[in-house]
Amino acid sequence: MTLDRRQKVVLESVRRFLRRSAFGHLINLMAKTRPQDLAPIYDTLTDREQLQVFRALADRDQELGAKFLVELSPGEGVAILRRLGPSGAAALLNRCADDDAAGLLAALEDDADAILEAMKPEEKAAVEQLLIYEEETAGRIMTPDVFSLHEDTTVAQTIAHLQAQGDVEMAFYLYIVDDRQHLVGVLSLRELLLHPPSTRLSEIMGTDLITVLVSTDQEEVAQVAAKYDLLAIPVLDEQGRLVGMVTIDDVIDVLREEATEDIFKMAGTSEEERHEPSILKSARMRSPWLLATFVGGNLAALIIGSRVESMKVIPVLAAFLPIVLGMGGSAGNQAAIVTIRGIATGRIRHGVVAKAILRELGVASLMGSLYGTLVGLFSYGQLYLRGEVDPGSSLWVCGVVGVSLACSMMLATAGGAVFPLLLDRLGIDPAVSTTPFVSTMTDVMGSLVYVTLAYWLLLS
Amino acid sequence: MTLDRRQKVVLESVRRFLRRSAFGHLINLMAKTRPQDLAPIYDTLTDREQLQVFRALADRDQELGAKFLVELSPGEGVAILRRLGPSGAAALLNRCADDDAAGLLAALEDDADAILEAMKPEEKAAVEQLLIYEEETAGRIMTPDVFSLHEDTTVAQTIAHLQAQGDVEMAFYLYIVDDRQHLVGVLSLRELLLHPPSTRLSEIMGTDLITVLVSTDQEEVAQVAAKYDLLAIPVLDEQGRLVGMVTIDDVIDVLREEATEDIFKMAGTSEEERHEPSILKSARMRSPWLLATFVGGNLAALIIGSRVESMKVIPVLAAFLPIVLGMGGSAGNQAAIVTIRGIATGRIRHGVVAKAILRELGVASLMGSLYGTLVGLFSYGQLYLRGEVDPGSSLWVCGVVGVSLACSMMLATAGGAVFPLLLDRLGIDPAVSTTPFVSTMTDVMGSLVYVTLAYWLLLS
Repeated sequence: MTLDRRQKVVLESVRRFLRRSAFGHLINLMAKTRPQDLAPIYDTLTDREQLQVFRALADRDQELGAKFLVELSPGEGVAILRRLGPSGAAALLNRCADDDAAGLLAALEDDADAILEAMKPEEKAAVEQLLIYEEETAGRIMTPDVFSLHEDTTVAQTIAHLQAQGDVEMAFYLYIVDDRQHLVGVLSLRELLLHPPSTRLSEIMGTDLITVLVSTDQEEVAQVAAKYDLLAIPVLDEQGRLVGMVTIDDVIDVLREEATEDIFKMAGTSEEERHEPSILKSARMRSPWLLATFVGGNLAALIIGSRVESMKVIPVLAAFLPIVLGMGGSAGNQAAIVTIRGIATGRIRHGVVAKAILRELGVASLMGSLYGTLVGLFSYGQLYLRGEVDPGSSLWVCGVVGVSLACSMMLATAGGAVFPLLLDRLGIDPAVSTTPFVSTMTDVMGSLVYVTLAYWLLLS
Repeated sequence: MTLDRRQKVVLESVRRFLRRSAFGHLINLMAKTRPQDLAPIYDTLTDREQLQVFRALADRDQELGAKFLVELSPGEGVAILRRLGPSGAAALLNRCADDDAAGLLAALEDDADAILEAMKPEEKAAVEQLLIYEEETAGRIMTPDVFSLHEDTTVAQTIAHLQAQGDVEMAFYLYIVDDRQHLVGVLSLRELLLHPPSTRLSEIMGTDLITVLVSTDQEEVAQVAAKYDLLAIPVLDEQGRLVGMVTIDDVIDVLREEATEDIFKMAGTSEEERHEPSILKSARMRSPWLLATFVGGNLAALIIGSRVESMKVIPVLAAFLPIVLGMGGSAGNQAAIVTIRGIATGRIRHGVVAKAILRELGVASLMGSLYGTLVGLFSYGQLYLRGEVDPGSSLWVCGVVGVSLACSMMLATAGGAVFPLLLDRLGIDPAVSTTPFVSTMTDVMGSLVYVTLAYWLLLS
């Protein structure tokens, strides 16, 4: 992402103000630019300049600093809070929404305690309340500032309440509670306007409620909001009391995060890599998948090694090993990803599983026949180029290569389609382990087919 | 996705009503269940039962039918409309939101004209208006029913307008226009309540507008909405007139669709597969990536074939070819996906590109050294098991295997990290061609390193 012309002008001014220590001007400029547009400019500053900017914000305009802080990537936010030290970090976090502050503090790990101590007591209490809930639950991402009214309130009183209330976060729904703070109804602002001032909320509220618990997984919260087209979901505690709401902007963040998480899982690394961990940590996160390839590769080596005589007699067979396994792996991964995504988006649902598998096998046999024939012809071409065409065995060699390739593609596709469905049925997230499984299975089955066919060829 | 107990009860009732042709009861039951909860039940019905359900809806309750139709997957929706025939399909599409109807008609391809002819003239005109815009643009996904008021309107008049207006789609913002229908301001419903009844909208409206054009790509629309936390984005035509708005529920659909699209692209197939095309079409969509693996595999076969003597002398070398290429491919794909996702989410931004590449190389050299050593030891183990350990050459064989594997992993990682950044710099979507490139490059470079090292070994 490169800066556009206007952003370049802003960048120049920021740099100039920093050189001159003209922090008043700097903050005026920042206040006039949308925080979302400032983020890419901030990225191009040096580490020292970035610290200067946030020192100035923490000293002079904590409100603006907080607004800007939450637009940075989580990795950047945590990094700058660490460098600001407890008092500077606390000054900014005091002004952040409680759920944002809780998220940053959780990522700060060991440094969080000192910052919490430096925060205002009421903010500290609110954030600690959220930190009680587990990561990636509704409790952690909800805002506790939820606008709720008693069911006996009238429309006129409600409007007066709304006018008195200063800065409620994204109020589109009014949540209506009973004496025990239990959620009993919901009303949109627009519906409120449609009724006479003396009407009680209990008479006009909707009672078909969709809610989540504080312990509900954030992915489920997002799926529910997306499914029912909700702008906010009320969050209840275990006693059914309204304790917060998750708003649509957090839902969008979760959906994007989960999409990234799924992609990362399929590639055999962890979503944690988004937070830019150390090189050693990254290597550790990516190792499990490589381990699967490693195991598969070693098994393949054992299998091939046990029937290596054919390679000795017809060495060109070794040359076609990579394509037999490679094409199988590619086809298997395509089948796996189409299936995993079909499960995730709900396209493959109860009752159409068998159809989905048969479809994949149909696709695989088409592609397997095509590419098997092509690779078979190519192997003949290569023998011809090397002057090794021998009317007795060359056609057999091409047959072994072509048939193995087709088998390898079909086996891998079958595995790629069936395995994620099986995991899903067992309640395991299919994104995690399917691709490693497919690659291991392809290496083992593909080389088994190949060396077995080659062995028969030698006997013939 | 399996049905819960309540859904099973509903399913039983639906089946019973269908058997008895008790369509009145069927429709009462459907009206009482949320359309989103009906979709999985509908999926478990037979084709014949599904057609019966929609025949009943098209005849008796088009409103409910339309509501339910848009909750089906696009593939299912298109399939049932085709089977209903033009008049049934038109009865339902008349009641759909214009953007939903346009999307379904576009997917119906050749069957769309007959259905359009059967629709009500005003609905037909509104939908045709949207179909003018290209697929995947703001124009295609916007709702043209946008609630706009002239800047001279007072707060009291606005509230009266809102009350008179029946069913506006998701009105949270009021859009304010001048005499020429040009958008000049925006106001949230909540802000409206904060001002005295005689105030004019022009005095209180916000003028810092974020808008998109009808021709803006839907992915960009979604990114803008997500970035600025907007519930709706106004859409302008080329003359700057307000012609529609894209609401947050459509934004969420686009974000999910694009995530699926990215995943599909990386696996070398097309997002079109979501619409469940024929097996032949699927095979055609997946072929390009397999072609890359095919080309890479054939090049590898040529390279290995040209130095095949080493395999003849030390046949066990052939056994380790798959692991050398496989580990390279896995490591390269991990690097590619972390990089592609970093670009997509804006984590890797201008100015940190070199850092991102160096990080990847660091991770690769760590993992390459580790797995290179391990595989080297394993190859020694295999020679030992086969009784082929020879003090002169065995250690050399392990060296060739281990060093090739480490090189293959590092080369593949470098390619996986650099190539998407290069594509992005050139304005090409890195998700499309990176994985095939990495797999081809790994096959070629990996086998080159391997046979070259093996050849030197023979000379020594």
